[in-house]
Amino acid sequence: MQDRTYTADAEPGDDVTVAGWVHEIRDLGGIAFLILRDATGKIQVKFEKDEMDDDLVETGLGVSRESVVSVSGAVEEEPRAPTGVEVTPESVEVVSAADPELPLDPSGKVDAELSTRLDNRTLDLRKDEVQAIFAIRAELLRAVREQFREFRCTEITTPKIVATGTEGGTELFPITYFGEEAFMNQSPQLFKQLIAGSNVERVFEIGPIFRAEEHNTPRHLNEATSIDFEGAFCDEHDAMDVAEGIVKAGYEAIAENCEEELEALGLEEEFDVPEGEFPRISYEEAIERINATGELDEQLVWGDDLPTEGEKALGDDVGGHYFITDWPSEIKPFYIQDHDDDEQLSTGFDLMHPQMELVSGGKREHRHENLIEGFEQQGLDPDQFEYYTKMFKYGMPPHAGFGLGGERLVMTILGLDNIREAVLFPRDRQRLSP
Amino acid sequence: MQDRTYTADAEPGDDVTVAGWVHEIRDLGGIAFLILRDATGKIQVKFEKDEMDDDLVETGLGVSRESVVSVSGAVEEEPRAPTGVEVTPESVEVVSAADPELPLDPSGKVDAELSTRLDNRTLDLRKDEVQAIFAIRAELLRAVREQFREFRCTEITTPKIVATGTEGGTELFPITYFGEEAFMNQSPQLFKQLIAGSNVERVFEIGPIFRAEEHNTPRHLNEATSIDFEGAFCDEHDAMDVAEGIVKAGYEAIAENCEEELEALGLEEEFDVPEGEFPRISYEEAIERINATGELDEQLVWGDDLPTEGEKALGDDVGGHYFITDWPSEIKPFYIQDHDDDEQLSTGFDLMHPQMELVSGGKREHRHENLIEGFEQQGLDPDQFEYYTKMFKYGMPPHAGFGLGGERLVMTILGLDNIREAVLFPRDRQRLSP
Repeated sequence: MQDRTYTADAEPGDDVTVAGWVHEIRDLGGIAFLILRDATGKIQVKFEKDEMDDDLVETGLGVSRESVVSVSGAVEEEPRAPTGVEVTPESVEVVSAADPELPLDPSGKVDAELSTRLDNRTLDLRKDEVQAIFAIRAELLRAVREQFREFRCTEITTPKIVATGTEGGTELFPITYFGEEAFMNQSPQLFKQLIAGSNVERVFEIGPIFRAEEHNTPRHLNEATSIDFEGAFCDEHDAMDVAEGIVKAGYEAIAENCEEELEALGLEEEFDVPEGEFPRISYEEAIERINATGELDEQLVWGDDLPTEGEKALGDDVGGHYFITDWPSEIKPFYIQDHDDDEQLSTGFDLMHPQMELVSGGKREHRHENLIEGFEQQGLDPDQFEYYTKMFKYGMPPHAGFGLGGERLVMTILGLDNIREAVLFPRDRQRLSP
Repeated sequence: MQDRTYTADAEPGDDVTVAGWVHEIRDLGGIAFLILRDATGKIQVKFEKDEMDDDLVETGLGVSRESVVSVSGAVEEEPRAPTGVEVTPESVEVVSAADPELPLDPSGKVDAELSTRLDNRTLDLRKDEVQAIFAIRAELLRAVREQFREFRCTEITTPKIVATGTEGGTELFPITYFGEEAFMNQSPQLFKQLIAGSNVERVFEIGPIFRAEEHNTPRHLNEATSIDFEGAFCDEHDAMDVAEGIVKAGYEAIAENCEEELEALGLEEEFDVPEGEFPRISYEEAIERINATGELDEQLVWGDDLPTEGEKALGDDVGGHYFITDWPSEIKPFYIQDHDDDEQLSTGFDLMHPQMELVSGGKREHRHENLIEGFEQQGLDPDQFEYYTKMFKYGMPPHAGFGLGGERLVMTILGLDNIREAVLFPRDRQRLSP
């Protein structure tokens, strides 16, 4: 369709062929309008019944909604038309007729359950506000990649089929790999470290991760997009700087380049780019502040993981993004380094949005002996991870990094209620297709 | 390490802390040099034994190769040094000592088997020429994404865990998904079509695909990166235009932005951006030309698939990238549309590099009835694919697209002998870790 004009590019005086979906037909008697919709917007096609060829009128007005049509004709100015122009058709071709019984109304006039929408994603994505989410997601990832490159990072791809999981055998989907047991990777953690330990030094990856978690909540997915960073000669403070920079760059790009999409989502007024530095609050201070809110039935004590309600109470208290630093070593994974002067205290950090955790990161254990010890303390067999640990004997630099949940980032930026809204074809315990 | 200076940024007159790997120690008697290497290059550190603190000299010259060191001192001009500057150290810290017995020599002076290199990728990636491949790969993918956006495409992510494979049950890795049988996806084909059928219209995806192929050749991987395009209101000619544009944009970006990396690979003289339009040769002409080369033992007849030697003979004949169009319908998958005027002839096309196939694409079957028929002809049960086929009843536009092998693109651009050179951690029948 090399001679097709996008509706947004149709200018008065042009002779065009526009093609798209029948959004609506408005029949006012002697005159009727077909509203044609494509990727760039909508355009009005005018039918004057008495003055036009009967076949043309019949074809144009007899077609079912959501059918694909191609319309050729002259574009004229028309102030009363939604976009200020309309097409007077010379010809109308029904390219792909739609069944009049639609399982979902893409005009959005009839609400549909999320599961109906996901079962009929093609129709669902014809709604401006749904399409907007994925246009914003694409712009977000574009900006994130650009910002990583400004931080001197190289984009990498690590394998998704692995012999061992990052944190052992739990929560892994098993696969059969030419008769051998293998798994779908739950995190690029070990692989990105192996690259950061080479000359490449600073790397990022944006790719799928797979977690066989039993959770079925509005915040969990079994297949998600992880935005990973790892940097040689970085400590936890550097990694926090990178995480903060990435998140802010995402907000800024959306504010700058997604005006129409924010409008489609009704967010044009309330969309704020986070300002100022994200506060860095120690775990110790965090539990004190959570306890002080009085929101929890039981007071937290040092060593407790933070319950969701605790995170929310603290989030309300802080009122924006913030880091929680200096977590107890025992609730962070073995590959996180402890502080030199207090081995009860890890260098692990989380980046929190008031609604939920976005990022988990820290300085990594780069000392071979400590690493082997960490595996054992976690109840893992270091021999199974020899492909990883042996590289720590050959000049592994200090390094730090993080993993950022891509869909959670989209969800919190746009204030979505359910993380499934941020995925084209989500995977959860109940949903394996489409 | 916020106060660390990259070696490439060390200017005469600066007081710096540089950190990196011990590339080499050259002891000339009274004077000795430690060559320190980081992500940006190398720098010479000078030790004058009689004039410097004994401990400093001992630390700096006693350290094993590939150990990580941090050196603080003044940068001075030194025309005889490899980069024209050298550091006179005030202090040297061994940050991470390397085992003197290295399984691989990152200086590249000792050749290593590919399997040894892949087992020790961290060390392998410390070689300039290996690092260069992955820097170029990252730049290629950056440029490809940018070019797709210029073609008005939205980047999408489709699921990697699926209920059914694109082309049925063969060559799929089975996974256990909460007790259900599922598979790792072999292609985003069906999903990208479902999105192209919505308002989004033009999409691209760069992501992993998984193929349980028994092949173990220098051109096959069991986990690969697929660069996918799908566009509504596009035909096979449009899709070929996009494929050609993407490939050329990749070459151009590398020529423009990867001078140092090309040099590390010894390609600075012979790197050519493809010029002119890629010829579009029909399948019929292709077999005639292959037969005319006399390279095959048996003449090809219409309906044969092209053997590898045939592709190579034609590649030599053409001398550059070319398309093969109008394939016999029966050797192309069910989702490829046939020509309206000859149903023996499909709209499928391949983009060929003289060495191998890069792209497979075509105009898709968008007519519900024909699609169902296609499934049946291929011996597949259309009911299993209802999540896909039912969307074709609700206004599926004509559309076309392609899949481009990311690693094959890197391999052909750089003239690599083995596709595993283009993957950090390749997966093949024998290799599941690291």
